[in-house]
Amino acid sequence: MIPRYSRPEMASIWEPQTRFKIWFEIEAHAADALAELGTIPKDAAKTIWAKAKNATFDVARIDEIERETKHDVIAFLTHLAEIVGPEARFVHQGMTSSDVLDTCLNVQLTRAADLLLADLDRVLAALKTRAFEHKMTPTIGRSHGIHAEPVTFGLKLAYAYAEFGRARERLVAARKEIATCAISGAVGTFAQIDPRVEEHVAKAMGLSPEPISTQVIPRDRHAMFFATLGVIASSVERLATEVRHLQRTEVLEAEEFFSEGQKGSSAMPHKRNPVLSENLTGLARMVRAYVTPAMENVVLWHERDISHSSVERMIGPDATVTLDFALVRLAGLIEKLLVYPANMAKNLDRLGGLVHSQRVLIALTQKGASREDSYKLVQRNAMPVWRGEGDFRTLLKADTEVKKYLTDAEIDEQFDLGYHLKHVDTIFKRVFG
Amino acid sequence: MIPRYSRPEMASIWEPQTRFKIWFEIEAHAADALAELGTIPKDAAKTIWAKAKNATFDVARIDEIERETKHDVIAFLTHLAEIVGPEARFVHQGMTSSDVLDTCLNVQLTRAADLLLADLDRVLAALKTRAFEHKMTPTIGRSHGIHAEPVTFGLKLAYAYAEFGRARERLVAARKEIATCAISGAVGTFAQIDPRVEEHVAKAMGLSPEPISTQVIPRDRHAMFFATLGVIASSVERLATEVRHLQRTEVLEAEEFFSEGQKGSSAMPHKRNPVLSENLTGLARMVRAYVTPAMENVVLWHERDISHSSVERMIGPDATVTLDFALVRLAGLIEKLLVYPANMAKNLDRLGGLVHSQRVLIALTQKGASREDSYKLVQRNAMPVWRGEGDFRTLLKADTEVKKYLTDAEIDEQFDLGYHLKHVDTIFKRVFG
Amino acid sequence: MIPRYSRPEMASIWEPQTRFKIWFEIEAHAADALAELGTIPKDAAKTIWAKAKNATFDVARIDEIERETKHDVIAFLTHLAEIVGPEARFVHQGMTSSDVLDTCLNVQLTRAADLLLADLDRVLAALKTRAFEHKMTPTIGRSHGIHAEPVTFGLKLAYAYAEFGRARERLVAARKEIATCAISGAVGTFAQIDPRVEEHVAKAMGLSPEPISTQVIPRDRHAMFFATLGVIASSVERLATEVRHLQRTEVLEAEEFFSEGQKGSSAMPHKRNPVLSENLTGLARMVRAYVTPAMENVVLWHERDISHSSVERMIGPDATVTLDFALVRLAGLIEKLLVYPANMAKNLDRLGGLVHSQRVLIALTQKGASREDSYKLVQRNAMPVWRGEGDFRTLLKADTEVKKYLTDAEIDEQFDLGYHLKHVDTIFKRVFG
Amino acid sequence: MIPRYSRPEMASIWEPQTRFKIWFEIEAHAADALAELGTIPKDAAKTIWAKAKNATFDVARIDEIERETKHDVIAFLTHLAEIVGPEARFVHQGMTSSDVLDTCLNVQLTRAADLLLADLDRVLAALKTRAFEHKMTPTIGRSHGIHAEPVTFGLKLAYAYAEFGRARERLVAARKEIATCAISGAVGTFAQIDPRVEEHVAKAMGLSPEPISTQVIPRDRHAMFFATLGVIASSVERLATEVRHLQRTEVLEAEEFFSEGQKGSSAMPHKRNPVLSENLTGLARMVRAYVTPAMENVVLWHERDISHSSVERMIGPDATVTLDFALVRLAGLIEKLLVYPANMAKNLDRLGGLVHSQRVLIALTQKGASREDSYKLVQRNAMPVWRGEGDFRTLLKADTEVKKYLTDAEIDEQFDLGYHLKHVDTIFKRVFG
Repeated sequence: MIPRYSRPEMASIWEPQTRFKIWFEIEAHAADALAELGTIPKDAAKTIWAKAKNATFDVARIDEIERETKHDVIAFLTHLAEIVGPEARFVHQGMTSSDVLDTCLNVQLTRAADLLLADLDRVLAALKTRAFEHKMTPTIGRSHGIHAEPVTFGLKLAYAYAEFGRARERLVAARKEIATCAISGAVGTFAQIDPRVEEHVAKAMGLSPEPISTQVIPRDRHAMFFATLGVIASSVERLATEVRHLQRTEVLEAEEFFSEGQKGSSAMPHKRNPVLSENLTGLARMVRAYVTPAMENVVLWHERDISHSSVERMIGPDATVTLDFALVRLAGLIEKLLVYPANMAKNLDRLGGLVHSQRVLIALTQKGASREDSYKLVQRNAMPVWRGEGDFRTLLKADTEVKKYLTDAEIDEQFDLGYHLKHVDTIFKRVFG
Repeated sequence: MIPRYSRPEMASIWEPQTRFKIWFEIEAHAADALAELGTIPKDAAKTIWAKAKNATFDVARIDEIERETKHDVIAFLTHLAEIVGPEARFVHQGMTSSDVLDTCLNVQLTRAADLLLADLDRVLAALKTRAFEHKMTPTIGRSHGIHAEPVTFGLKLAYAYAEFGRARERLVAARKEIATCAISGAVGTFAQIDPRVEEHVAKAMGLSPEPISTQVIPRDRHAMFFATLGVIASSVERLATEVRHLQRTEVLEAEEFFSEGQKGSSAMPHKRNPVLSENLTGLARMVRAYVTPAMENVVLWHERDISHSSVERMIGPDATVTLDFALVRLAGLIEKLLVYPANMAKNLDRLGGLVHSQRVLIALTQKGASREDSYKLVQRNAMPVWRGEGDFRTLLKADTEVKKYLTDAEIDEQFDLGYHLKHVDTIFKRVFG
Repeated sequence: MIPRYSRPEMASIWEPQTRFKIWFEIEAHAADALAELGTIPKDAAKTIWAKAKNATFDVARIDEIERETKHDVIAFLTHLAEIVGPEARFVHQGMTSSDVLDTCLNVQLTRAADLLLADLDRVLAALKTRAFEHKMTPTIGRSHGIHAEPVTFGLKLAYAYAEFGRARERLVAARKEIATCAISGAVGTFAQIDPRVEEHVAKAMGLSPEPISTQVIPRDRHAMFFATLGVIASSVERLATEVRHLQRTEVLEAEEFFSEGQKGSSAMPHKRNPVLSENLTGLARMVRAYVTPAMENVVLWHERDISHSSVERMIGPDATVTLDFALVRLAGLIEKLLVYPANMAKNLDRLGGLVHSQRVLIALTQKGASREDSYKLVQRNAMPVWRGEGDFRTLLKADTEVKKYLTDAEIDEQFDLGYHLKHVDTIFKRVFG
Repeated sequence: MIPRYSRPEMASIWEPQTRFKIWFEIEAHAADALAELGTIPKDAAKTIWAKAKNATFDVARIDEIERETKHDVIAFLTHLAEIVGPEARFVHQGMTSSDVLDTCLNVQLTRAADLLLADLDRVLAALKTRAFEHKMTPTIGRSHGIHAEPVTFGLKLAYAYAEFGRARERLVAARKEIATCAISGAVGTFAQIDPRVEEHVAKAMGLSPEPISTQVIPRDRHAMFFATLGVIASSVERLATEVRHLQRTEVLEAEEFFSEGQKGSSAMPHKRNPVLSENLTGLARMVRAYVTPAMENVVLWHERDISHSSVERMIGPDATVTLDFALVRLAGLIEKLLVYPANMAKNLDRLGGLVHSQRVLIALTQKGASREDSYKLVQRNAMPVWRGEGDFRTLLKADTEVKKYLTDAEIDEQFDLGYHLKHVDTIFKRVFG
């Protein structure tokens, strides 16, 4: 996570002040529950809220205490006592640091998930708008980078829409994975804290109680969360790669929006490079990179160790901030993408009708040629075209073997573009409902 | 995937004969639909089924044809024509290889998922049985590898049960991700094949139609599937690591079952090593390793390329066979795990009552000592015990500062083991219902 | 590792018979040293060699014994005793299984490295030949997929040559990392075996003695080995990606060789797809995937555990066989690559001289225009060309601001292709010596 | 990279001011060479140095320009022109941004490597000192976490010393990989800049000229660099894991230094947790995580794209800062590690002499028992001891079968601890010379 690739909305979730505020809320809600249970005085709970609810925590002061105690939660509690006064002794009763830390992390991750869901919605909206705009804009479909058969540019965006729709569903599930709260005390036995405190805090913080914790919330949940981000990032890379391909000089079917002041190259002023898409490719690599350490984090020793902590201090912000930035950048890229239907048409014509070869193949078999023979007939007329030696339709009409099966009119029928687009409606209905 | 770590049930899903059988079924069901639509003669569809339904495909023959054509599906279709005869020309009409290959892969993956779900059920059953068996067997809870406070051995297994329960839910979701079928023809436009064929084949093969495909089924689905296996493998490693720790010579609270003929070490005959758990640790690393290539596979060029294929030919079998083997091994390990409650009791007593320090801490604060002071009082009596110089309870009773807050009887109260286990029932109800 | 992507030369290194043969050699050389030291009778060592040197080990029999003993080395030794007779009791004296297993693995890896080095030599030779063949074939250099300035096709291959030259150096270093032998007995103390045995076996097997082992050879060596393979695989992917790009329909500057019987697509007979390069892309992902488990393997517990073993049983063959296959495929691809200089020339001309924009920019600054002004002058004449509205040279000559700095003749000078290729010789000398 | 896990020495390498200073030096050295070649006036080069050599660059101003131009190097050059004045037009002549950016990155990485080498030296020094201190301190060697045979604590540290010695050699090689400079202009042809400029800048910046670049320095170099850091991090994790194991309550053979004010647990005041080692485990996971994106970065399109850039902006600092922090933390940990020889002795005795079982096994075979029989005799006397039912030596002496081969005195001989340590000297000489 670096400022260059951060949005303040997401970055602020990971700031110390936010973290301390969440820690306070967890402690204060727990105090409410403890007061309700009669474990601590009701006035104490009220005082805790009253004194610190609107406090700005002194991050430097907490850091200073931590340098001495080498323990972040104790440092916070010490500072909180400076704010709250004597009633501070009723804070954190029967709790462990992990109760605070793990519940806080999950609050941060659910907030991050909410932002990412909003980002996905923006990506989806952009894809839908542009997909309908270009629903019937013909363009060549390519397999292996080689011209195959016609599709529409709207279909390309509809593919992406469906993919990001799945991304959204996965993220909803991943959010649920980490929306849990544990206030279960040392080694998770509730020996020193009533399970009802956990229930209260969970509800107050918008989480579910963790059914069984071992002082820590189990890290398979987080592994699943970060793995899901990695998969979503891969979808970002796929769409970004599509744009990079479309913007290639020889293809030029679409281009990233290029603002007036922008310079493509310090040496070559004419260049307009797909730098946003390339950037997204790199960012996707990073979000994916965080999946493995998140999975390694699952393997804590016995009831818990702290090896996961340094990993999460890094990948918590790094993965969410980077993916958030990437999704917003992707949404903007799609919203403003320059689309060149004329170039698409030009490219479609490029192979002299070869893209209709499969139709010819099928027509031949339907007229009684064996599949093997049909394949050979098509291939021998296709190869010269491929080498730039002639036009496919003309060659077919001149091939005496082909003429045994197909008349000139029947050959002409196979070269109708509309034929390929007849199910675009069906597909759009499947995707957009 | 190597025979040493394979079970035949899973390995057979990936054998050529199985693959060809699935290919045939896809083609034959498609022929049924084409016949129903009037595209091909109804008799042709019947003949295809009649001639090849119970055929054993000649793998060597198909390989031979593929060496010439360098195309696996064409090789298969050529061989199929040898079995079916002239009606073979009605097979595969309007379809592409990807229709067959991708739908087949998803059939294989769903079957693999079904086996893995059964494996998880066996792991869950074993964990549940052993958890109830040891529901109230006290043992020390450890954080950072250091004695913390008492738990029960049943709780340790209940943690794992909850974790594998989540694994099961994730796998159900992952199975759904890849249970789709695409019969959409070149670049996925249905130009040469009616969408109703896809619907028919999907239903017949137990899959859903892929809403929009680009000749290939989008690989974000598979990335999610393999990522899920990676997370499950991490949970396997966690439980295996627990066993490795418990079997350490100095701990010896549990041991892998050791059969009569087994030899622990060629050099040191007395040794009983946790080799199954260590093996599971390694296997988990492998299943995790397949996540990244699966995510890289998402980024196909334009409508499709074939870069994913070699990856899937390897990780399809490798990931599912390895995880299947690991889960079955884990289930057996838990079913037969030797548990030593006497050693657990011995270890619990090891620190001279230090594990009750938190209770003393809380008792002090409840009697009016500040949190800071309480911490210091406990720590100064704990440190000598840690160094082997005395018994915690005796030292506390001799500390005049402590005595200001707690009587001897009150100190004694803090050393009750039952205190820690009072919520075991609650937790078991949460986990097992 | 699957047969489809295996060459017998590399696969045979990992066959059981090879492994048992290496095990035998280690044991027999150790017996020689033990005999020389007087630990066992000299005749015993001779008998061991005489009876088993040319033996074919009965893999099924060894498997059978292992099923009972659950220990592979003991199973082998039991079978060896069946071959050697009573003198077999002098085999393996003071040794542990790890002495045999780890030394054997390193023998296998060094042999694998030797094959890979030969593969790299073939790749390098192919690149060198084709680089000189096309040393002066002009082609457009592209940054961001956008036309930049002219290079030669020979330069492209020279880049790759330099990269694979570095790959070779790295592999030589990686081979050295794992070319060690440990015969140090239990926990590596040589308590039961003289260090001179290790020295003798190391020399006989072409290895160095491991300076300090802990029963096992430290796995940081293997991590470095597999990491190196991962980096080499990434270079394979880079070159394969270059070919995939060059073969795109719109670019078509080069093509994979396409044999007569080969079929590009079952549905579209005209297609010639870069399937080998795409396959290499996928294989590279797999070789990279083995890096992380190899690094995780470093972290053995105390003197050793067996968690690395299952990983190595898989990635040992998987990584070396896959990379070997990929390198040989890559060498063949380069050797037979179809190169189309005419298409390169056509693409070079595509942007109406825009590729010379930087030259114009520099000429302007040299004539006294500020860098900022020069940039703007070039950009305003470049943009219309980019949109297909005119020719760059003509536009420049018509720009009155430009004419303040450059005459028509000076403008013409900037459009000389030879200008860009004047240092090709220098670069070739740097790369090829 | 977060402040918590950063040292200022390393972090400062990655600060904007440092980067701009390096950019300036590259530009100014290039100007010197251009002046020497007569391309630009000699006075211009002098002025550039004179005006900007000691300048502090205005990071905010550069950021502001970049927001408009969306190009970092142009922003810098614009700001530089504000400092240098009219002669600024002679800066960057014939160069591209990549010349500056890539050479700068390599300067930063070599400086980072130098710090890491110093860190490794400190780790090595600490390991050597402590190894000699405990050269003959007996402790149990463990395989699979199970007691095996005696070693010394010095040997454990010597293993680590040898491993970090290899780490150092690898880092020296990795540093060499990235210590290159490219000033080759657009697409690397030197069309607009003389190769002698590159030679001059390389020498001035302490780098070698890149033999062939494609505007960018090839990223296989960086992949190898980051892969090497990943392997070193794995060695950090191995040693950290050893400490975590040694500090376990039941083992307690060593402990991390525990400062006075430090608090182990907010809930359990007695606890002394190996938090530094656990932290190192997590940090190692992170450094490893950066290897895969670095390898993915190798695959640039054609002569270059910018996808690597975002990755490097993150992993450049993240990997080097994190590993630097980890190595320094590890060095301090080893320097101050608390070692408990008495506990080691206690643990050694724990198994009632079982650790000598291999010696007994060998003695039996040397007296003529078959290997199989010896194994069984040892195992049947070992198993009761393992179960806590007796002492190994006593049981052996009471076994009539054993007595056929060994007298009581001969049995006693096998229980000598010194026997295991007789080659410690040899091993130390191999490791420390």
